[in-house]
Amino acid sequence: MSITADFASLTELHSLVQHFYAHQMHHLDERRFEEYAATFTEDGEFQHSPGVEPARGRAGIVDELVRFHKKFDGDPVRRRHWFNQTALDPRPDGTVRSTVYALVVTVRPGGKPEISPSCTVHDVLVLDGGRPALKSRTISHDQVF
Amino acid sequence: MSITADFASLTELHSLVQHFYAHQMHHLDERRFEEYAATFTEDGEFQHSPGVEPARGRAGIVDELVRFHKKFDGDPVRRRHWFNQTALDPRPDGTVRSTVYALVVTVRPGGKPEISPSCTVHDVLVLDGGRPALKSRTISHDQVF
Amino acid sequence: MSITADFASLTELHSLVQHFYAHQMHHLDERRFEEYAATFTEDGEFQHSPGVEPARGRAGIVDELVRFHKKFDGDPVRRRHWFNQTALDPRPDGTVRSTVYALVVTVRPGGKPEISPSCTVHDVLVLDGGRPALKSRTISHDQVF
Repeated sequence: MSITADFASLTELHSLVQHFYAHQMHHLDERRFEEYAATFTEDGEFQHSPGVEPARGRAGIVDELVRFHKKFDGDPVRRRHWFNQTALDPRPDGTVRSTVYALVVTVRPGGKPEISPSCTVHDVLVLDGGRPALKSRTISHDQVF
Repeated sequence: MSITADFASLTELHSLVQHFYAHQMHHLDERRFEEYAATFTEDGEFQHSPGVEPARGRAGIVDELVRFHKKFDGDPVRRRHWFNQTALDPRPDGTVRSTVYALVVTVRPGGKPEISPSCTVHDVLVLDGGRPALKSRTISHDQVF
Repeated sequence: MSITADFASLTELHSLVQHFYAHQMHHLDERRFEEYAATFTEDGEFQHSPGVEPARGRAGIVDELVRFHKKFDGDPVRRRHWFNQTALDPRPDGTVRSTVYALVVTVRPGGKPEISPSCTVHDVLVLDGGRPALKSRTISHDQVF
């Protein structure tokens, strides 16, 4: 989207999506995986890392998150996902593409935050009765070119 | 709050609170403590660190901020408070709970930013004639488990 | 601006500006300099570093960005501009001053993000048919006192 008259009509959606992301990332970082998966459509797709096959459907997304987080078993780590510069672009099929910068903040007891990796979130959003839902999410990593 | 139809009604409040926080943090980082304290209700409570007794009332909040910042006397430090992922949850009593990620960016002349600590801000907000005010703010620190 | 009844009237503008900044920074970080310059008014001024003469007009802004980015020739660097705490203050002449915290995230292949410098963005915005445009942008750097 170029920044035209259409731009203003996306303002309310931008706020809605910002708030949607806030709750969604609190769910993820508190490891409420079912609530995270519920922010996707029934047939939603989630690819959290390059080169990994996307998880499909809410149950599949929960399974993949459980699997991924096993590497933190016994590790008293706190992870926080930061998002920035959410740019929305409406598409002809009525969905909205959302492109967002992300950083992962990682803290362990007594330690200082490590802020890595830097990623870009590529979302396709639908609105279902005023409620945003993710049709797909793909993450690219800045250190992988 | 689950992400339901109620969610949309919080969209405008979310924007209002984002802007409220922006001005509030500029006040804090520029050490305009009276203007920071004025963002609380008359009887507002502010606990900036775990294990510290909360400051109560606007005058009390100013006093505590003056005391806390004495440790920077003679230190040409610039501090900036970054907020992210503001999640609002309305409560039955009409107040709104706001849970926010925070990072403190610290810079000294000629140096690079140090980004620490990572915190969570736990706010209880009231709306007074369309203007948000803090009934209470409590900060938890990620490196303290 | 103090936080008064006027505050609420800025809420929609705040959202609009947040989204404007998101697209603008994606343009800059993808080196779409013409699209970045188009977010300024015809006679807009852009001073990206202290002590540098401001670039004037869209063509001048493109020229300056091309010149500045020559230092990254042959360097497979990815830069991302993060903004935070956008505080809007309307001015008597109908323009809006916007003061924003900024961090530059820099990543090279295989490396971890370097987050530096910490800056403040000082914008003067105008609204042209509901579309924000920058009359001027000046950046100050926290490590320069």
